[in-house]
Amino acid sequence: MKINANYQKLNENYLFSTIVRKVNDFSRQHPDIEVIKMGVGDVTLPLCPAVIEALHKAVDEMAKKETFKGYGPEDGYGFLKTAVQGYYKKRGVTFETDEIFISDGVNSDISNILDLFDRDNTVLIPDPVYPVYVDTNVMAGRRIVYTDATEENAFLPMPDPSVKADIIYICSPNNPTGATYDKEQLSAWVDYAIKNRAVILFDAAYESFVWDENLPRSVYEIKGAEQCAIEFCSLSKTAGFTGTRCGYTVVPKELRFDGLSLNKMWLRRQTTKFNGVSYIVQRGAEAAFSDAGQKQIRENIAYYKQNVKIIGDTLDKLNIAYTGGKNSPYIWLKCPGGMKSWDFFDLLLTKIGVVGTPGVGFGKNGEGRFRLTSFNTPENTAKAMERFYNLFK
Amino acid sequence: MKINANYQKLNENYLFSTIVRKVNDFSRQHPDIEVIKMGVGDVTLPLCPAVIEALHKAVDEMAKKETFKGYGPEDGYGFLKTAVQGYYKKRGVTFETDEIFISDGVNSDISNILDLFDRDNTVLIPDPVYPVYVDTNVMAGRRIVYTDATEENAFLPMPDPSVKADIIYICSPNNPTGATYDKEQLSAWVDYAIKNRAVILFDAAYESFVWDENLPRSVYEIKGAEQCAIEFCSLSKTAGFTGTRCGYTVVPKELRFDGLSLNKMWLRRQTTKFNGVSYIVQRGAEAAFSDAGQKQIRENIAYYKQNVKIIGDTLDKLNIAYTGGKNSPYIWLKCPGGMKSWDFFDLLLTKIGVVGTPGVGFGKNGEGRFRLTSFNTPENTAKAMERFYNLFK
Repeated sequence: MKINANYQKLNENYLFSTIVRKVNDFSRQHPDIEVIKMGVGDVTLPLCPAVIEALHKAVDEMAKKETFKGYGPEDGYGFLKTAVQGYYKKRGVTFETDEIFISDGVNSDISNILDLFDRDNTVLIPDPVYPVYVDTNVMAGRRIVYTDATEENAFLPMPDPSVKADIIYICSPNNPTGATYDKEQLSAWVDYAIKNRAVILFDAAYESFVWDENLPRSVYEIKGAEQCAIEFCSLSKTAGFTGTRCGYTVVPKELRFDGLSLNKMWLRRQTTKFNGVSYIVQRGAEAAFSDAGQKQIRENIAYYKQNVKIIGDTLDKLNIAYTGGKNSPYIWLKCPGGMKSWDFFDLLLTKIGVVGTPGVGFGKNGEGRFRLTSFNTPENTAKAMERFYNLFK
Repeated sequence: MKINANYQKLNENYLFSTIVRKVNDFSRQHPDIEVIKMGVGDVTLPLCPAVIEALHKAVDEMAKKETFKGYGPEDGYGFLKTAVQGYYKKRGVTFETDEIFISDGVNSDISNILDLFDRDNTVLIPDPVYPVYVDTNVMAGRRIVYTDATEENAFLPMPDPSVKADIIYICSPNNPTGATYDKEQLSAWVDYAIKNRAVILFDAAYESFVWDENLPRSVYEIKGAEQCAIEFCSLSKTAGFTGTRCGYTVVPKELRFDGLSLNKMWLRRQTTKFNGVSYIVQRGAEAAFSDAGQKQIRENIAYYKQNVKIIGDTLDKLNIAYTGGKNSPYIWLKCPGGMKSWDFFDLLLTKIGVVGTPGVGFGKNGEGRFRLTSFNTPENTAKAMERFYNLFK
């Protein structure tokens, strides 16, 4: 038996394990210092009451023969697809329910979608980037080209007509930079994809943090996107589902390559290799889209936004440049004094007990940058940023 | 962009859609006849009280900041791995918890595991078979050779030393035939795999229906299996989780090819392409392995076994040959009078309003065979088999 030798080409990513080790070492040596963690990209607020109520109700249904649910549709229950459809409709984006696929999250779908594409394609990935885009293509043995996200382009790289790519990753609002494309910029990517007969894999995981009404939250707000883009989104950051697991993927029927429908191919992939998301979880997700759920969710996001504002205000006062924040749970700052990412990490940890994420861990263009997240409490965030201010003032 | 052209080589499987159409047509023309469905491989009893209680408790944990769970380990929580470990230990099979991976079901894992293997491998699949084994390898463009499961070998094909295979699928108790390998037979497969440096993908989805203490419920009851086999199992049929979604996959650390650990490769695959199973569902699954849960589950399985006995007793009285039943939820019968599968389907539907599954839908060796399942109520099963008896006596 021959193993998939591409796995040997994967780089181990020691980013988060190194952070954990450094923090543990520090805490052991300085048990008196309260360490404040602002590095993790995970939510901290509990599920909202509307979701909890729906989950309990679904569990009760599973307890009675009359209401018990066995195998469901692999691509998701109609009730949840209709809820997602309604969520898009609010922004003027319309889909049929069979263009919406329910999944256990963006990570699974944005990885598994690669099944539909030949190995012999060129993949365009921004740097810095969420490591899954790179690793999943290394596993499949595809050619990867990078597009630089730098200070010069405000971490929003634009298409280069001289580069020929087949599969294009766009994450907006971006992880890790928090930078968010406007409609004109996204239009240029859609035009490029259509011209090159490329497909855009659009990661919209952070869309609910976009509060600027003029910025697109879905790639389908851009004309022509339904001919070239697949959109992945989830309730992880929107409704605190990181541990509950539910997402959705939109594959428009207009998306055709070599005369073949990607929508049909994805349906075939999912009905063959996947058995759907837990009924209980789908009922919880449906409730997140209800009026009550939406109201409660927005309160949670406002809570995280409050933290982002505390971070941003502190950086503004200190004249430290950053992207993200306003329409994202992440702030991507330029390390003061030209420091390198890991040096800055060590400085913050040892001097003020604050933990963030070194930008270089996301790619070469992340060197000299640092990511802070808004998922701690307002109290801890305020305390951390007060220490931060006193260190750099 | 080049699509994965292998998808065009997939055969559409119209088995279940054809059944639905025929049944609907019949019911429309004969609204007075009560149709009894014994074709579906889905459980019908609700989740047991121990599981329901654990699910509610986990939902409550998700409602409070202090007990809320965000991202969990991609390969599953320790509490559930320990429960699975204990379940194996009862049968004398020992694993470390990092050899156990929690998933959303057999279907996902037995499909996704193929990521670890090169395209250039030969796959050995029994005929008749659960269609996923074939389709997932067609999608990847691998060579498939078939091994015939027939009346002559009691639907339990044995290894042929003249056939060279790299990836071997074994499902025991089998879907659709219900046939179950004994230890000696399974040993022969393990020996063949070790000799050929092949990997066995062992689908143990129906293990909890094995009531004969002498029959293996896990491939790891066979000496040497930890060097050549990956086992996939789930709570779908064991604990009625078909709509709740939780399974587990065992990848022993001794399993190495080209000096590389499949355990490490699978961990890399799952931590990259998967974000784990819902915390709530994992707590429900843990409860299924508790003493109370196990007791309640065995009562549910006894309920289905009662149906299997009704079917088997009727076929015995009529001298109709079959495999399965005793250690399986399925009965695979030889159509009386040399009838073809679909003719027999039509006969049962139109004469007595009973629905089963034509064997030929699972492969060429299924022609002339028919699958009945034990997942209806005892009352309906008894009624159906009474009609069946009167038709063939």
